[in-house]
Amino acid sequence: MTQAQQTQQIRGGAPSRRALLGWGGAGLALGAAAAGGAVAVARTGDDTTPAAAGTGSAVEFHGTHQAGIATPVQDRLHFAAFDVKTDDRAEFVQLLKDWTEAARRMTAGKPVGEGAYGGLPEAPPDDTGEALGLKPSRLTLTIGFGPSLFDRFGLQDKRPEALAELPAFPGDNLHKARSGGDLCIQACADDPQVAVHAIRNLARIGFGKVAVRWSQLGFGKTSSTTPDAQTPRNLFGFKDGTRNIAGTEADRLKEHVWVGDGDGPDWMSAGSYLVARRIRMNIETWDRTSLQEQEDVFGRDKREGAPVGKAGEHDAPFLKAMKPTAHVRLAHPDANDGITILRRGYSFTDGTDGLGRLDAGLFFLAYQRDVRKGFIPLQRKLAAHDALNEYIQHVGSAVFAVPPGVRDSGDWWGRTLFSKEA
Amino acid sequence: MTQAQQTQQIRGGAPSRRALLGWGGAGLALGAAAAGGAVAVARTGDDTTPAAAGTGSAVEFHGTHQAGIATPVQDRLHFAAFDVKTDDRAEFVQLLKDWTEAARRMTAGKPVGEGAYGGLPEAPPDDTGEALGLKPSRLTLTIGFGPSLFDRFGLQDKRPEALAELPAFPGDNLHKARSGGDLCIQACADDPQVAVHAIRNLARIGFGKVAVRWSQLGFGKTSSTTPDAQTPRNLFGFKDGTRNIAGTEADRLKEHVWVGDGDGPDWMSAGSYLVARRIRMNIETWDRTSLQEQEDVFGRDKREGAPVGKAGEHDAPFLKAMKPTAHVRLAHPDANDGITILRRGYSFTDGTDGLGRLDAGLFFLAYQRDVRKGFIPLQRKLAAHDALNEYIQHVGSAVFAVPPGVRDSGDWWGRTLFSKEA
Ligand code: HEM
Ligand code: HEM
Repeated sequence: MTQAQQTQQIRGGAPSRRALLGWGGAGLALGAAAAGGAVAVARTGDDTTPAAAGTGSAVEFHGTHQAGIATPVQDRLHFAAFDVKTDDRAEFVQLLKDWTEAARRMTAGKPVGEGAYGGLPEAPPDDTGEALGLKPSRLTLTIGFGPSLFDRFGLQDKRPEALAELPAFPGDNLHKARSGGDLCIQACADDPQVAVHAIRNLARIGFGKVAVRWSQLGFGKTSSTTPDAQTPRNLFGFKDGTRNIAGTEADRLKEHVWVGDGDGPDWMSAGSYLVARRIRMNIETWDRTSLQEQEDVFGRDKREGAPVGKAGEHDAPFLKAMKPTAHVRLAHPDANDGITILRRGYSFTDGTDGLGRLDAGLFFLAYQRDVRKGFIPLQRKLAAHDALNEYIQHVGSAVFAVPPGVRDSGDWWGRTLFSKEA
Repeated sequence: MTQAQQTQQIRGGAPSRRALLGWGGAGLALGAAAAGGAVAVARTGDDTTPAAAGTGSAVEFHGTHQAGIATPVQDRLHFAAFDVKTDDRAEFVQLLKDWTEAARRMTAGKPVGEGAYGGLPEAPPDDTGEALGLKPSRLTLTIGFGPSLFDRFGLQDKRPEALAELPAFPGDNLHKARSGGDLCIQACADDPQVAVHAIRNLARIGFGKVAVRWSQLGFGKTSSTTPDAQTPRNLFGFKDGTRNIAGTEADRLKEHVWVGDGDGPDWMSAGSYLVARRIRMNIETWDRTSLQEQEDVFGRDKREGAPVGKAGEHDAPFLKAMKPTAHVRLAHPDANDGITILRRGYSFTDGTDGLGRLDAGLFFLAYQRDVRKGFIPLQRKLAAHDALNEYIQHVGSAVFAVPPGVRDSGDWWGRTLFSKEA
């Protein structure tokens, strides 16, 4: 290979790290390590007790479960759904391995490969550079596989039944350009630039093999998985996430979120299922609604977030005191044979809708052990009866199988699905 | 007036604060004050020496100049352009007064009017509530008037010549839905929820009188007006804002940013002119470009941000060492008869463009004393010669006259333009 050919190969898009090491030598690797620097890592992945980590710190990438589910919810989100563009299984598996390595580095606060200026001047830098100097910011990267992926690569037999396509719910107004996807990556971080940087660099590594189908920025979390933190408010001004599963509740996570050993195909053990819904909130109509109506809609008061007739946010709700159409009355586990999901949504505002209204809402993310026993029955009920429906509309939808965690430095995203030995 | 009529009037959209005080009495006002709480305010408006304020603190709303120009750049942006829907001058002036009062409260960390639950249950709350419990987050709200506003309300004679319509530049691909506007409000804050809340509540107060024409969320600042802070990086991975005017440089602000007494119509004295450009950055192409080409494009190195041939970011650039098409060589004051603008842009990522690419870029904001002597000649030159043009495209454009600051609690946005006595 001539040097020109090598440069060409690098420009083609595959991560140039190995190529560079192949002929650039160890001197270059040094630069990358120095650029990465040392970071304090809070282990959260391999047990269900997330450490209370500071805003700037790193979240451990490795563990039994993927981080970004039970991890205390970070402030910002960049979520991307991808379509697969290659029919070559080996090439796709290599991408998963390259992605894993990049994710491992970025979640530790290190740049991809040789970094933004560690390579040869004639080559594109391995890392796009805009996160240099920023803290790890608790970045988590979580991968999921959509139903359509299982039509490829001879995976038909491996598709879990729990990864059900969602039915059409009454009131749905789904945009194809904001729905579906062969796979997804959820990037959560306390600094949006860190989350955007991560998705962008993964998209770049995937160039030619996958293409971004849609992506969503979330500017503020609407739920919390830390019981002691202040509950965030959604764009309707209400506390959201009060009765969520906490990341520290190992028993509830085991019962409702993590896929158990006998639950379906082995490769999904310790994984979870993710439902993503882009829910437009008609804030202009809501803002002209009386306080009483607003509180009736949720069955909680606006100030404290207390259930009807109770004083404190965390008082047990008395469902019969609420209107029959109240969101909480309909969604509460007691009214649904115990159904419980882990919510991890973010508020979004994406400019204007052409009618002088803000295109704002909730990017709803929910993790569960089985979509057929979590989101589907719950949303069937809400779509039919929820008073909230007058003020919201579901405009995007996707569902993903989220495989188990990457166990160690030799493991990679999706190994249990793709590896012959698994 | 019956109570039903009063409620109706409130629902109509005008800020209900005065109406409520009219019949709700002092008890309600108390709730609002309590909800607001006490906040430490760093004065920055009435002199040109911004105090180094903490992330959560409040920025003083009153001053000779509007805050949000020389103020140390906050982390996040929500920018909205509005069209005027009323032909009634008195109604529009009342809106400016109501907006001023709401801006005064929100920048101090207080909710609008009676707050999110201080009013009557039968009435819509005065404040939408999602910023409750959040810190003031250095929120600044800055108003500007577009050229088209001066076709209304008998203002033809008041339009400053310095508020020139921008010519079409080579390479422009402007979308009407992202350009223009009778007026704008720039909301900057360290917490995006605080910035989004502010725009949304102002839009709400303006319901029926103005409508949002377009809006833009910026997730990360790309320039800094504080010389000692770390220079932020843009989405091309380069430090951006190195040679910006610092908010502490009173002389340079006076010379290049603030409208002087003899500069044009009196009402603009101590104001400024704002150019907003939505610049799409083709990050996918950029990311396949060599480090050498990237550095040549700017005339600075990627790691330090040092000018070609120099070692440090803040070393004086030697322009002749750069390629003739280098961005910095073309934009530097020495190459432009001293032209200097104050940059205050933000990175954006607005999902995907339908072609598998992120719709990402720079929302460029520049303040100057005269658009004809600032942005226009500079951009004419850049549009013709800048090597950067291969990687960017201007897709939105607007220009606004930014009036002087609101001096005290009796003053209001636009008084010098609209008041008969002014
Ligand atoms: C824009 C749409 C939505 C908004 C604004 C919203 C808001 C809220 C709020 C304010 C609460 C009460 C506080 C809490 O416990 O978190 C709540 C509870 C809940 N929501 Fe939603 N929600 C939305 C959509 C959904 C959807 C689509 C589902 C599932 C299909 C859902 C499931 C739940 C559940 C399970 C609870 C907890 C009920 C309980 O245990 O008491 N929500 N939601
Ligand atoms: C996406 C578009 C743009 C990008 C990525 C960009 C990036 C940069 C960078 C990295 C620098 C060097 C560091 C610094 O001094 O801040 C710079 C400098 C500068 N840019 Fe831009 N810029 C863009 C558009 C513009 C536009 C449209 C203008 C004005 C019409 C402009 C005017 C300037 C000026 C005046 C300087 C300082 C030059 C000096 O004093 O050395 N830039 N820009």
